[in-house]
Amino acid sequence: MTEQHQNAASSAAGPQGHVFHQRFSVSFDYPVYFTRGIFVPENALLIDVLERLGEKRLHRAAVFIDAGLAAAQPQLTAGVVEYFHAHCGRAELALPPQLVSGGEGAKQSWDLVRSVMSVLGNAHLDRQSFVIAIGGGAVLDMVGFAASLVHRGLRLVRLPSTTLAQNDAGVGVKTGMNEHGAKNFVGTFAPPFAVINDFGLLATLTDRDWRAGLAEAFKVALIKDRSLLKLLVAKAAALADRDAAAMEDVIRRTAILHLEHIRDGGDAFETGSARPLDFGHWAAHKIETMTGYAVGHGQAVAIGIAIDMHCAMSRGLITQGEFDSVMAAMIACGLPVWDPCLARRSDAGELEILEGLRQFQEHLGGALTITLPDGLGRKCQVHHMDAAQIENALAWLSRRTKEITNESKKI
Amino acid sequence: MTEQHQNAASSAAGPQGHVFHQRFSVSFDYPVYFTRGIFVPENALLIDVLERLGEKRLHRAAVFIDAGLAAAQPQLTAGVVEYFHAHCGRAELALPPQLVSGGEGAKQSWDLVRSVMSVLGNAHLDRQSFVIAIGGGAVLDMVGFAASLVHRGLRLVRLPSTTLAQNDAGVGVKTGMNEHGAKNFVGTFAPPFAVINDFGLLATLTDRDWRAGLAEAFKVALIKDRSLLKLLVAKAAALADRDAAAMEDVIRRTAILHLEHIRDGGDAFETGSARPLDFGHWAAHKIETMTGYAVGHGQAVAIGIAIDMHCAMSRGLITQGEFDSVMAAMIACGLPVWDPCLARRSDAGELEILEGLRQFQEHLGGALTITLPDGLGRKCQVHHMDAAQIENALAWLSRRTKEITNESKKI
Repeated sequence: MTEQHQNAASSAAGPQGHVFHQRFSVSFDYPVYFTRGIFVPENALLIDVLERLGEKRLHRAAVFIDAGLAAAQPQLTAGVVEYFHAHCGRAELALPPQLVSGGEGAKQSWDLVRSVMSVLGNAHLDRQSFVIAIGGGAVLDMVGFAASLVHRGLRLVRLPSTTLAQNDAGVGVKTGMNEHGAKNFVGTFAPPFAVINDFGLLATLTDRDWRAGLAEAFKVALIKDRSLLKLLVAKAAALADRDAAAMEDVIRRTAILHLEHIRDGGDAFETGSARPLDFGHWAAHKIETMTGYAVGHGQAVAIGIAIDMHCAMSRGLITQGEFDSVMAAMIACGLPVWDPCLARRSDAGELEILEGLRQFQEHLGGALTITLPDGLGRKCQVHHMDAAQIENALAWLSRRTKEITNESKKI
Repeated sequence: MTEQHQNAASSAAGPQGHVFHQRFSVSFDYPVYFTRGIFVPENALLIDVLERLGEKRLHRAAVFIDAGLAAAQPQLTAGVVEYFHAHCGRAELALPPQLVSGGEGAKQSWDLVRSVMSVLGNAHLDRQSFVIAIGGGAVLDMVGFAASLVHRGLRLVRLPSTTLAQNDAGVGVKTGMNEHGAKNFVGTFAPPFAVINDFGLLATLTDRDWRAGLAEAFKVALIKDRSLLKLLVAKAAALADRDAAAMEDVIRRTAILHLEHIRDGGDAFETGSARPLDFGHWAAHKIETMTGYAVGHGQAVAIGIAIDMHCAMSRGLITQGEFDSVMAAMIACGLPVWDPCLARRSDAGELEILEGLRQFQEHLGGALTITLPDGLGRKCQVHHMDAAQIENALAWLSRRTKEITNESKKI
């Protein structure tokens, strides 16, 4: 060993040979905008975002648009082209906007991922070029996954187009693909270059997709923010009825709670025991795979929250009154609290949904850790879920759902 | 916007709506050992490494072994099994060691990557389980790529088995797949959990692979460490002739120079203008793809260094004497400085190798940046390479190689 290397504080020789201890940090930063009219030609925000590092050059971008969104907003694709034309001195499209089919199917296709990577390669995008993904969470995940791999990471700008993507998946640091029968079995930690939540993109959502994001709002409110929960309870009917101002407020507050959790958790890439905000998610992911993703993520999360809220009540973490008020608000928001797949049992008589606990543990690694509310607006972590309590929860939710159905039949 | 969010320093409302500026850092650390006899049953180092975070539990691991290595060292696979048996209270194999075919072919096959991911899924490895990859750079890259994607990253322990992998690729933070006609077109930044350079794994290398790592040693010495260069010049014949002690010294010093560069560069994931230690690599990558990887990475790097050294001399950055001494040492180490593919021209008469400059720029993004020596042991960066100077370099290297061939014929 030379003197030079002996001087390195992190380098040492011992009975087992020589060891060098490598240590470094990587900093990430990205703005998340909450705005409207991002493709109005006079609005320079998107171009300013591409230029935010002060690199003065003609920025190149590839734009991928969720085909469902493009169909619902027929002026969008042409609007993107016109927008770049209006700013042709500062940025250019490397190729025409590409439509990609959305929904969970997008997350199950390696062929689709590889075709996106080929498109990026054929357009000669480099590591300082931009991929702009416009769409729901599945499109953002799939395009983001491809972009995170090409040249080990192109710059990704996300324009989430659903309430769910705007307040949760689209503002975070992950991409994911469904493989091996499990949601997000494969993926990357890949912080975006920027996120722009354009509320105008939400106007054409179906009612189901409009309401889906409210499930993540309940999730984060129940374990982190009692004042947001109060807002959700107070505005439940208005939110279900497409009150845009109320929804924008809920999206912004929910997104920021997610961003703060990533920032303040000290383990943004979840290498240790840090947990993402995943209250209700062990059951949600299993419901999605059990139904072949017929139940959307937001609806599955609502059901998962309902199950875990009932369990929290059984454990004495919340009161019956608290449980009832939250269930009433979720139902008033048009969110489901039950799906028939929950009744399924294995040949041995075990509820199939319980398998979700094992898969959840396996995905995160280490001991089973489930987040539950500890009173409303606060969280605790438990390491065991009681099967009998889950059975009770399902019985209650099934019964309550039948009552709701009967009530609506009477009307 | 609520008061709560107005209080966040990084959050602000403006004419374009509201913006939250997300900022966080992720810390990485991993030990790199230089040792021998890692699978001797009494040697607890590997188990201590798996336990280095102080988690007291039975650690689960999947071991992948380069098939070429397993054939050359027939006791290795059984030795791995016996080793885990000897430490059965602290760690276990989740499945028998898996052989994977090595060489660049491993880096070109999505099928292989997906099969490794399936194996990891079937073994129910979680994010805190271990993937132990033993082999050359291609196997480490392919298995590491798969491991970095499953559950968004399992813990990877690398045991590089070639001089090239031990002193460069195996100690760094990248994985890579060859796609779209370009080396490492796809990949991830994924720091390992630990690296163990067991010098015993090198004993059965072919002479070509034994010498290949010397090219990366010359690379880093020429631009960073004149004392290492002096060692390479002084020991060239011994290194070519398989002097183990000399090679171990060169590997350790070269690996540490690479590790320090990653640590001290301030941009380990190369998101900005930071450059990896890639002197000679623009031509090397192109030579590899032009020859369908028949020319190995180390040999291609040697040729790339020779080209860029000649260009550096043409630019007045190094003297004729310096150039001659380095070429003599590289040739004495058994490294090539020429390949017939360098003579190939397009229909328009342009040297095909020049296309490597554009691909190199595209991979890293931004302006073309080529590292050259500025005197021996120091580096500078240039943003233009002169085609005529490259032509001159090739003419010299071709001529010199013919002379060497003729000299050896006379003997």
